[in-house]
Amino acid sequence: MNLPLFPSKLLENAVNEFASLPGIGRKTAFRLVMHLLRRSEGDVSRFGESVIKLRSEIRYCRDCHNISDNEACNVCSDPLRDKSIICVVESIQDVMAIENTRQYRGVYHVLGGIISPVDGIGPGDLNIGSLVKKAESGTISEIILALSTTMEGDTTNYYLFKKLGHTGIDITTLARGVSVGDELEYIDELTLGRSLVNRTPFSM
Amino acid sequence: MNLPLFPSKLLENAVNEFASLPGIGRKTAFRLVMHLLRRSEGDVSRFGESVIKLRSEIRYCRDCHNISDNEACNVCSDPLRDKSIICVVESIQDVMAIENTRQYRGVYHVLGGIISPVDGIGPGDLNIGSLVKKAESGTISEIILALSTTMEGDTTNYYLFKKLGHTGIDITTLARGVSVGDELEYIDELTLGRSLVNRTPFSM
Repeated sequence: MNLPLFPSKLLENAVNEFASLPGIGRKTAFRLVMHLLRRSEGDVSRFGESVIKLRSEIRYCRDCHNISDNEACNVCSDPLRDKSIICVVESIQDVMAIENTRQYRGVYHVLGGIISPVDGIGPGDLNIGSLVKKAESGTISEIILALSTTMEGDTTNYYLFKKLGHTGIDITTLARGVSVGDELEYIDELTLGRSLVNRTPFSM
Repeated sequence: MNLPLFPSKLLENAVNEFASLPGIGRKTAFRLVMHLLRRSEGDVSRFGESVIKLRSEIRYCRDCHNISDNEACNVCSDPLRDKSIICVVESIQDVMAIENTRQYRGVYHVLGGIISPVDGIGPGDLNIGSLVKKAESGTISEIILALSTTMEGDTTNYYLFKKLGHTGIDITTLARGVSVGDELEYIDELTLGRSLVNRTPFSM
């Protein structure tokens, strides 16, 4: 079924808006819109409001650029977090993924992207200046570079290392190794090699 | 990645709303919301408005119950359409599907569902009264029952036939037969049998 003839402009507008989202085609968009039409008016207006408010009222933490409802995000404003350790990540999703592990007690710094000449993203487009300023403040003991293990991630790591090296702060990166649940025969040789070189004492 | 710890209530609300749509899980909802955050504020507010307006301003044609921006939908208000032929369909999607064929010049009647005791939908929940009234007005020459070829569709067809039989109007149904592109060996015997009984003169 193509959808060329909409009986209503309102319907067409809503379908077009949904179809503009990534991974949602026109048929799915139409199905979603027909679903919304069957919901109560209060329900649908709550949906719309939540989208509008999300974009218009969202704030970013003045310290780490994480999403926040206040001036400082709930990580930066938590007195139990160690402010001397900064974990540098690409995006808010990465903050949430690391928070999910419940293994990290430092704070974050969200770059808002990664250096990618192909996509036209240079260091100037990222939150690097504020990171360097933090590093130069003398209160930081360690910076963990937790970027993707891609070429872009490596480029950004290298750039940051150059920018931060003069501060003398420990700069670390996530351990490369075998994923939990991996079968050895299917692991790429680079990862397997690294996991051998960086082997750790056995513990139960 | 589970998503238990949202850094912002606004973000969480928007994700929950998207995840309430059919076929959209929490991960997809989160991805869509993060996408919206990267779009301009005007863009996102247009998205939200289109959803709210869709539900609050949508109207249904007073004649055929199709979706409409005006009192009469664009089919019913088209002077070139033959008002004496009514095609009875389950939903607005069906109207659009038939309109798409560009083969039909009559008008529609949208039932708004189909009789389905399992789902608790009885004749009283559907737009059947207004159809009977139209049929009794004496201006209708043919009623085409274009419902799904399921048990619910057959039940509804039977009910409508009972309700409309006394008017003496021609009551027809969509031809059952071989789909365009079908290979004979894979067609169910019921459809194949019907298509043999109702065979049509060959034409080029």
